[in-house]
Amino acid sequence: MDYQPLLEHIRQEIEVYAHDGKQADYIPALANVNPDQFGLCLNILDGRTYHLGASDVKFSIQSISKVFSLAVALSLLGKELWQRIGKEPSGTAFNSLVQLEYEHGKPRNPFINAGALVTADVILSLIDNPKEFFINFVRTLADNPDINYSEEVTRSELSCCNLNASIAYLLKHHGNLHNDVHDVLDFYCTMCSVEMSCEDLSRAFMAFAKSSQPFSHAGVNLSISRVKRINAIMQTCGLYDESGEFAFLVGLPAKSGVGGGIVALYPSRYSIAVWSPRLNSKGNSIMGMKALELFTSETEESIF
Amino acid sequence: MDYQPLLEHIRQEIEVYAHDGKQADYIPALANVNPDQFGLCLNILDGRTYHLGASDVKFSIQSISKVFSLAVALSLLGKELWQRIGKEPSGTAFNSLVQLEYEHGKPRNPFINAGALVTADVILSLIDNPKEFFINFVRTLADNPDINYSEEVTRSELSCCNLNASIAYLLKHHGNLHNDVHDVLDFYCTMCSVEMSCEDLSRAFMAFAKSSQPFSHAGVNLSISRVKRINAIMQTCGLYDESGEFAFLVGLPAKSGVGGGIVALYPSRYSIAVWSPRLNSKGNSIMGMKALELFTSETEESIF
Amino acid sequence: MDYQPLLEHIRQEIEVYAHDGKQADYIPALANVNPDQFGLCLNILDGRTYHLGASDVKFSIQSISKVFSLAVALSLLGKELWQRIGKEPSGTAFNSLVQLEYEHGKPRNPFINAGALVTADVILSLIDNPKEFFINFVRTLADNPDINYSEEVTRSELSCCNLNASIAYLLKHHGNLHNDVHDVLDFYCTMCSVEMSCEDLSRAFMAFAKSSQPFSHAGVNLSISRVKRINAIMQTCGLYDESGEFAFLVGLPAKSGVGGGIVALYPSRYSIAVWSPRLNSKGNSIMGMKALELFTSETEESIF
Amino acid sequence: MDYQPLLEHIRQEIEVYAHDGKQADYIPALANVNPDQFGLCLNILDGRTYHLGASDVKFSIQSISKVFSLAVALSLLGKELWQRIGKEPSGTAFNSLVQLEYEHGKPRNPFINAGALVTADVILSLIDNPKEFFINFVRTLADNPDINYSEEVTRSELSCCNLNASIAYLLKHHGNLHNDVHDVLDFYCTMCSVEMSCEDLSRAFMAFAKSSQPFSHAGVNLSISRVKRINAIMQTCGLYDESGEFAFLVGLPAKSGVGGGIVALYPSRYSIAVWSPRLNSKGNSIMGMKALELFTSETEESIF
Repeated sequence: MDYQPLLEHIRQEIEVYAHDGKQADYIPALANVNPDQFGLCLNILDGRTYHLGASDVKFSIQSISKVFSLAVALSLLGKELWQRIGKEPSGTAFNSLVQLEYEHGKPRNPFINAGALVTADVILSLIDNPKEFFINFVRTLADNPDINYSEEVTRSELSCCNLNASIAYLLKHHGNLHNDVHDVLDFYCTMCSVEMSCEDLSRAFMAFAKSSQPFSHAGVNLSISRVKRINAIMQTCGLYDESGEFAFLVGLPAKSGVGGGIVALYPSRYSIAVWSPRLNSKGNSIMGMKALELFTSETEESIF
Repeated sequence: MDYQPLLEHIRQEIEVYAHDGKQADYIPALANVNPDQFGLCLNILDGRTYHLGASDVKFSIQSISKVFSLAVALSLLGKELWQRIGKEPSGTAFNSLVQLEYEHGKPRNPFINAGALVTADVILSLIDNPKEFFINFVRTLADNPDINYSEEVTRSELSCCNLNASIAYLLKHHGNLHNDVHDVLDFYCTMCSVEMSCEDLSRAFMAFAKSSQPFSHAGVNLSISRVKRINAIMQTCGLYDESGEFAFLVGLPAKSGVGGGIVALYPSRYSIAVWSPRLNSKGNSIMGMKALELFTSETEESIF
Repeated sequence: MDYQPLLEHIRQEIEVYAHDGKQADYIPALANVNPDQFGLCLNILDGRTYHLGASDVKFSIQSISKVFSLAVALSLLGKELWQRIGKEPSGTAFNSLVQLEYEHGKPRNPFINAGALVTADVILSLIDNPKEFFINFVRTLADNPDINYSEEVTRSELSCCNLNASIAYLLKHHGNLHNDVHDVLDFYCTMCSVEMSCEDLSRAFMAFAKSSQPFSHAGVNLSISRVKRINAIMQTCGLYDESGEFAFLVGLPAKSGVGGGIVALYPSRYSIAVWSPRLNSKGNSIMGMKALELFTSETEESIF
Repeated sequence: MDYQPLLEHIRQEIEVYAHDGKQADYIPALANVNPDQFGLCLNILDGRTYHLGASDVKFSIQSISKVFSLAVALSLLGKELWQRIGKEPSGTAFNSLVQLEYEHGKPRNPFINAGALVTADVILSLIDNPKEFFINFVRTLADNPDINYSEEVTRSELSCCNLNASIAYLLKHHGNLHNDVHDVLDFYCTMCSVEMSCEDLSRAFMAFAKSSQPFSHAGVNLSISRVKRINAIMQTCGLYDESGEFAFLVGLPAKSGVGGGIVALYPSRYSIAVWSPRLNSKGNSIMGMKALELFTSETEESIF
């Protein structure tokens, strides 16, 4: 099947949502992005690749980085990681302190901010040059040496991360951060600042889509079972407090970021990345979600 | 592949858990069940069927009935149903009132008790003989006319359903129950009392596993898209507050009940039902979960 | 001191608030009251009485009845009562289920609905003709045999008490209601339906203001210490989730009702009842609160 | 009346509780205190003073400092303060983040940690040498120039204040801290480290007990109405999540600290300070509460 006509059709169908929502504006680097952009890249396991729109424009991946940091932390710590982080959907906002207090500092899952702070802490504890290690890992996955952190984004995030600082100190209070809080926040914000295009992301997530073979990239090694489990967590927790809706509408493991990117995958078949900065009230890209919903509806290729 | 040797192997592996946990004991009909039973039935889409242990012994399906009632309610009301029930994991216990109060009487999803009370209410409003209609639907799916409600279980449940009554009155307060509270509780408890064997359940869930074709059974009609969406909700919300763990360990859409049954499915491949009465602290069958984890690990056939 | 000129002055001062807020409208009997009424009655311990406005017009006392039922239940059960009800401010709305769930069915205090349902249950268990006993107690306190229940209000409340039913079933679930839920709701709604004037209420609460002598009225007997403790609970919990504000502004033990009445007392000095149907968002009479604030500010006679 | 025999009697009565509970041990400076000490000082408005036990031994006043900082902040900012802090009992632990998140960063009252961080922030913003100003204010109230901060306690508190840091960053996130978080924490911990004896505290709180005259001490000026309102907040919120119980048992405005001190007052009559390091599960001195309960029961001198 040639997917290009379908992708063009989807592009037309979602045009009606082109001006709904607005981009994240809590830091200048995100607020200043032109919101009227859309890109998509589809990688089929057989080697074919399809592009649409601004598929080669880099954007801030933000929370999508949480999948990469989970992969690294799980590779480093193994199943002990699950003594410090749960695997359940949170049922609350990604930055909520309420559940974390009730559950004594054990984050619900690795994709809420609290959980990703813990994965950052694990990496800081066990890797000598964590920033170099991490960017090298991402570059290797995406097969693109030009991927970088954005210093501007890191700086901005650090200057307005009071809520994350509050979460981090609560984790520290419960003994679930081993490094200095400011070091953890710095590394967390740095990882969120990575800039990638849809092409980069789609290619990088092929490593997770190939879940029937072991994962071994740039020093990060995961068994088949662990790759499948990362995919399972993407399925149940990948789109903040809209993960159930996304599973319902799209039916694929995926992860989103407030930069407007969403990357999804069909195990053993394909990975697909979309990007459009305008977000809904849950922090997910409106055109991105719609494009993915149409894609799995038209192809009838959801995992369900 | 002949699955029988694998199933026998799994049976031996899980023997070590045979005396962990205990059965539900809040009503005599469940407390009096012999807890040391185990059954399993696997139906492959190509027609093969495999059995293990007490696969033909009937047990109380309890919350597994919520999948059937969701199918009926969705068939009757269509997408309007989602104005009365959400699709997100709850992040809290299946019988919690907290979230329901904060969210003004809209249950998080159709598989927590509050959500299933609403699906019961929908059916009561739109079907003349709801109990007859429902049991006929279940019998048709399982191709077994000998499936029945247990009057004893219904009576017992009704005599100790104060918490469900509390939830029902809170729904009523918010305008999200249209029928008399006691009629809804009666119908809800009746549906939970259905008794089926693993063979019955596995066969019945083949209708959901066949998600690439429309669902049309005993007057309940669902499009391909709706069947897939029911499966997606099973994936994110099917095992109470352990749905994330189950997705992580097993990786299949599934639904469990406090009678000790769990039924899971791999879309377009197979459905599998297990039963063993001893439960963990979340209300899910210990041996059942373990058996399913081993099955998807050994076959490497999870959807992820 | 002659209080009449001060009371007249207060009446003028609060005129500016005469049209703020609106009366309770969840039942016809309250919705149909003329909202533009105001009454006040002040009883000094030395025997003097002062009146203002519609001080002799009867209105629905609603939650003010919770003080009377607490007095009866405490007289009957003694300190054992505090094993079933707490004494702490709730920090949440008077009809919240959240705290009750977290605290396993022990209401925070006797003046939230959950707590008053438990006091009603205690009375039902220990008194043969509870409705006769209760109205006789209230008539004796107020020295007015013409005080009665309103059957219309009771009927209306019972027909729209889904939220209280939800609370009652949650109490029942936790073993903290011993009688039939519907009997408890019926008695609870009946007690709330009592109709009294400001004159009646002010006179009745003199029994609590006289806290340096034992309380013995119509078969209800309380030691000095217990009367003081009822007053203390009025201080910390008497005005729903506005008790702190009221202590801050007025500085007297008091109890309010959604009928627009508030009755307050200065131990060993006076009791004062006000009534005006228009309520603020917390369910307390706007003109009533303002009148009491002015009264204690002008006289500098708060307990603090 | 000569209170000395009564005080001696109380001392004997509470001996039975002498070994219940244990002192705070989260910092060495508190853990190393001899827990088996008891002191009491009573100041009557007519000038008489009574002593019992270790009434002249200094201890860490901890949260009792929150009354002094509230007085300063209210003097500085006036009623605008109440736009940043509420006046309601919290119904939850003194260090809970849950309510603060739900209520968007406005602390429930000035005596929970979140509220006291805001009063510290107000003082930092408006006073040039806040630490000097504050200690001078406390010395003036207690008429004792030898009262000092404990540098050791301040240092210890600062080294283990992750939970307060979490609260402070959440306040900052909501715009309710204007100064640098670390400056606020430093000033907050410094104020908590003040060391005073029962004699100092009882004398200092006479300024609040004299609520029928304006408060003007060391540059801190409060109207009669404002003093009464501080007393009202002590009544409803002064003993953490045990304020209702304390009002019930003792019936006086009061403030406690985890150093084991409690100071209470009867407006226009007396102030009384007790100290004993062993605490109950709510963080209040066991012997201290018991002594005060006996004192108001025996004298029948509660405000109710």
